[in-house]
Amino acid sequence: MIEEVVKSAKNAFNKTMNASGESKNRVLENIAKILEEKQDYVFEANLKDLENAKKLLEENKINLSTYNRLKLDKNKMRDMIQGLYDLIKLGDPVNNIIWEKELDKDLILKKVSTPIGIIGIIFEARPDCIIQISSLIIKSGNCAVLKGGSESIETNKVLFEIIREALKKADYPLDTINLVFTRDDVKEMLAYDKYIDLIIPRGSNSLVKYIKENTRIPVLGHASGICHIFVDKNASEDEVNKIIVDAKTQYPSACNAVETILIHKDYPYFASLKEALKEAGVEIIENPESYSIEYGDKKLSLKVVNNAEEAIEHINKFGSGHTDSILSNNKENIEKFMNYVDSASVFANCSTRFSDGFRYGFGAEVGISTNKTHSRGPVGLEGLTIYKYKLYGSNNIVEDYTSGKKQFHHKMI
Amino acid sequence: MIEEVVKSAKNAFNKTMNASGESKNRVLENIAKILEEKQDYVFEANLKDLENAKKLLEENKINLSTYNRLKLDKNKMRDMIQGLYDLIKLGDPVNNIIWEKELDKDLILKKVSTPIGIIGIIFEARPDCIIQISSLIIKSGNCAVLKGGSESIETNKVLFEIIREALKKADYPLDTINLVFTRDDVKEMLAYDKYIDLIIPRGSNSLVKYIKENTRIPVLGHASGICHIFVDKNASEDEVNKIIVDAKTQYPSACNAVETILIHKDYPYFASLKEALKEAGVEIIENPESYSIEYGDKKLSLKVVNNAEEAIEHINKFGSGHTDSILSNNKENIEKFMNYVDSASVFANCSTRFSDGFRYGFGAEVGISTNKTHSRGPVGLEGLTIYKYKLYGSNNIVEDYTSGKKQFHHKMI
Repeated sequence: MIEEVVKSAKNAFNKTMNASGESKNRVLENIAKILEEKQDYVFEANLKDLENAKKLLEENKINLSTYNRLKLDKNKMRDMIQGLYDLIKLGDPVNNIIWEKELDKDLILKKVSTPIGIIGIIFEARPDCIIQISSLIIKSGNCAVLKGGSESIETNKVLFEIIREALKKADYPLDTINLVFTRDDVKEMLAYDKYIDLIIPRGSNSLVKYIKENTRIPVLGHASGICHIFVDKNASEDEVNKIIVDAKTQYPSACNAVETILIHKDYPYFASLKEALKEAGVEIIENPESYSIEYGDKKLSLKVVNNAEEAIEHINKFGSGHTDSILSNNKENIEKFMNYVDSASVFANCSTRFSDGFRYGFGAEVGISTNKTHSRGPVGLEGLTIYKYKLYGSNNIVEDYTSGKKQFHHKMI
Repeated sequence: MIEEVVKSAKNAFNKTMNASGESKNRVLENIAKILEEKQDYVFEANLKDLENAKKLLEENKINLSTYNRLKLDKNKMRDMIQGLYDLIKLGDPVNNIIWEKELDKDLILKKVSTPIGIIGIIFEARPDCIIQISSLIIKSGNCAVLKGGSESIETNKVLFEIIREALKKADYPLDTINLVFTRDDVKEMLAYDKYIDLIIPRGSNSLVKYIKENTRIPVLGHASGICHIFVDKNASEDEVNKIIVDAKTQYPSACNAVETILIHKDYPYFASLKEALKEAGVEIIENPESYSIEYGDKKLSLKVVNNAEEAIEHINKFGSGHTDSILSNNKENIEKFMNYVDSASVFANCSTRFSDGFRYGFGAEVGISTNKTHSRGPVGLEGLTIYKYKLYGSNNIVEDYTSGKKQFHHKMI
């Protein structure tokens, strides 16, 4: 059954790979309009999910934060619709010439951006995910097989119907976006490396780890977000307190929230920072065994270091390559930190919470990657594309070049 | 033991990730000079390998093409040295600003190119590979663990010593390039997804398949090269014969040699093509079961198709996404083919054999990728890089933006 779904996505891709920017924007506009029209219908479905989840919460089968993320209110609906219009405004990421080169006067090579193909996306709870992800998939010319969290199944179904209606109305291939439902479906998906080009898991560390361990398909995402802030000796008291409180408490369960503070041994306002954190309700843990912990809560690991080098070494050893920040007035230390911390996002004098596709101006994000290949950091439209080489010849053969009769001149045009 | 090697590479990477372009070029120049000085020493080691290989050949343990590829002669030595000087001339692919954006007036985001990290490279025979690959690794700021073919072990050892000497002389981290020797070493390497960021196999289909099936590390390369040429009905007789003979016979065992010819049913010079192929010693096989075969030999599958659409469909179904070419005078069919054939390289009116890093002007290549993520087609320096985001702030917190006190303005600079 999944094989049929994946094959139909592949068929759709044969069309969507060259769909015009206008036709893709038409689908996004349709989704926005139908969402607006049918929002009560969406809220109704969401209420059903919330009722079921409430029982699960009472039975301790899910936690409060899962329950809270499940809720789709008017504000989230407004943001979802606004997000679609924002995405429409962005340029088409596909069929752009990245560069063009003469290999010889009658042999022209073009590097052209293309969609990737079929993308499998597995996400937990947060039903607004399905709209955000599907719109990025459509705009980038890809096709997707989605599996949402079982807790939001009613909302997901309704949102999926809306997407399908929007595709149909725009006369765009229906099987561009596909929804599957069970854990067995996911297991089957992970085996189809023949058809699926990329898997993006959005959810708990254990979900990401399970997926990485059970597929040969490339996986884009992050298993953990152990973000650091290094406080240099000359950093300013007020700014340090303000930034660390923001990075920890503004949304403690976010992957870009700070988990470990590294403090220079000569930083003079340590007591003041402790006081500020205490006031913000943050618990400080000073224990080497905590360096690999992602709390996702109002807790922080803390370590005193001798210098910037030791901070960098600690981060490259214990960090997850997600986002790390230095607070300092020393330009040399800032540059050292920015260059030698081997993370997707390295910050100077600001909160780790800025590490996000919206905040980076990507319009939306499909996730944040700690991979070292393909896409690193927040992944937007561009991270959903690759390229092909197009070579336009005039009856050229290689023998003429290996024999020395002709020479390449490799000129960028 | 391999863990030690991989860890020492990781330590070296902490320095090489920001090594200057000059220091990297100095290493390449040293390699070129020492190669020149010690070439007799290299040829001597290569003779030992050839003697051992001759026995294996007589015992039918290796084939003639493996034996031939093993040989390192004066021409190959000259090309190797020239390749190093060519690479020196290319720009530094690392620490370049890809773009720069104001998120707000005092919050600047830079997307900067970086090396990937530790790359595991497994190659068979062809001892010149070790110089080509190591020089690309060094120039791109990465570090590598290499495993060469056992048949070229003596040559590999000497070339590796030369590389190490060149690194030492340039005061560049010695453990940038590491060599391991046994199949067990490879097995161990494949398990270190914690340290190794990318595996590049260069060798037989079975080697690539083995690696893909036995590691969680991303693998860059191609398992097979089933390349097609589609002959449209209005293509010119002479050009068709010339290009197909070149694409098949110029180097039949290359991955970019053509394996299947798709001929439009109304192409008038079919008999002439058959004659030309016969003259060139090429055997034609007309059997649907041959569509997935990579002959690597003077053999060709042949199929008659009704139109360009059928050719495209056939290629997307049976091809390996490597390189496919259309021979046609019909602009519309050419554009259809270039846009809808989902391969790394799509060509019009030229031989598939142009699909190569040197010919594309990349200076050298680490391999050819049929992946749909990270790097597609011939992979040169750029394919060995990724990027990081550097965010320069002025004590900014996220709360100011979520509360509406401040707004992002996302301006490219």
